[in-house]
Amino acid sequence: MFDDIDHLGIAVAELEPALATYGGTFGMELVHREAFPEHGIELAFLETGHGCVELLASTSDDSRIGRFVAEHGPGLHHIAYRVADIDAALAALAARDIELIDEEPRAGARSTRVAFIHPRATGGVLTEIVESPAP
Amino acid sequence: MFDDIDHLGIAVAELEPALATYGGTFGMELVHREAFPEHGIELAFLETGHGCVELLASTSDDSRIGRFVAEHGPGLHHIAYRVADIDAALAALAARDIELIDEEPRAGARSTRVAFIHPRATGGVLTEIVESPAP
Repeated sequence: MFDDIDHLGIAVAELEPALATYGGTFGMELVHREAFPEHGIELAFLETGHGCVELLASTSDDSRIGRFVAEHGPGLHHIAYRVADIDAALAALAARDIELIDEEPRAGARSTRVAFIHPRATGGVLTEIVESPAP
Repeated sequence: MFDDIDHLGIAVAELEPALATYGGTFGMELVHREAFPEHGIELAFLETGHGCVELLASTSDDSRIGRFVAEHGPGLHHIAYRVADIDAALAALAARDIELIDEEPRAGARSTRVAFIHPRATGGVLTEIVESPAP
């Protein structure tokens, strides 16, 4: 059902020091950076092998990342798997009674289509599926 | 420094229902299963693309996974990256003042050599590096 690990979503308190660690110290390549002022978050994707680390920082106290960091501290936020056809994947998950947060795909970073699976269905892990744009 | 995402460590309350979800529902292939009675844990690796999900379950209340699940609930426990030479990677991390849990590699599952980096150095993420055995 899933083709590969797409990215690891890591909630950080501030983007720049995290970029210095993952990009500078660990040497991962910064491949994308995007801000979503309407959601109060900014993010950066750094490539490592076949997947990415996605650093997520809040730019507004009441964003979902701001609330996550306030409640849990910085750390792992979600895991994303790559799928070839997100509509087919969502239909297959629903047919297997997997609890979905998004029953329909929505727009994600990097022009992807994404949907989230509820942590109750995945052993406590907020899980995203991602369909890349057609090349 | 890191070649790829090696695996995602997920702490679960019980191994069998998690295997049913990740192996059965999500269709990941079970590639390895191992118990460490001396550490009170059992684990299973399921392949997804170029990486794995590692399901970790406690077989003893005072194991580190048992304590993690008691404190946080089930969920993401650590991220592991693949390295070609773990001794060189540890030396490079130490030279960059990255706080290590293991200054020397130790034996991991699947005949690997592993070491952990402290979450304080990685934005709150318990981070493992893994060197696979020579083929």
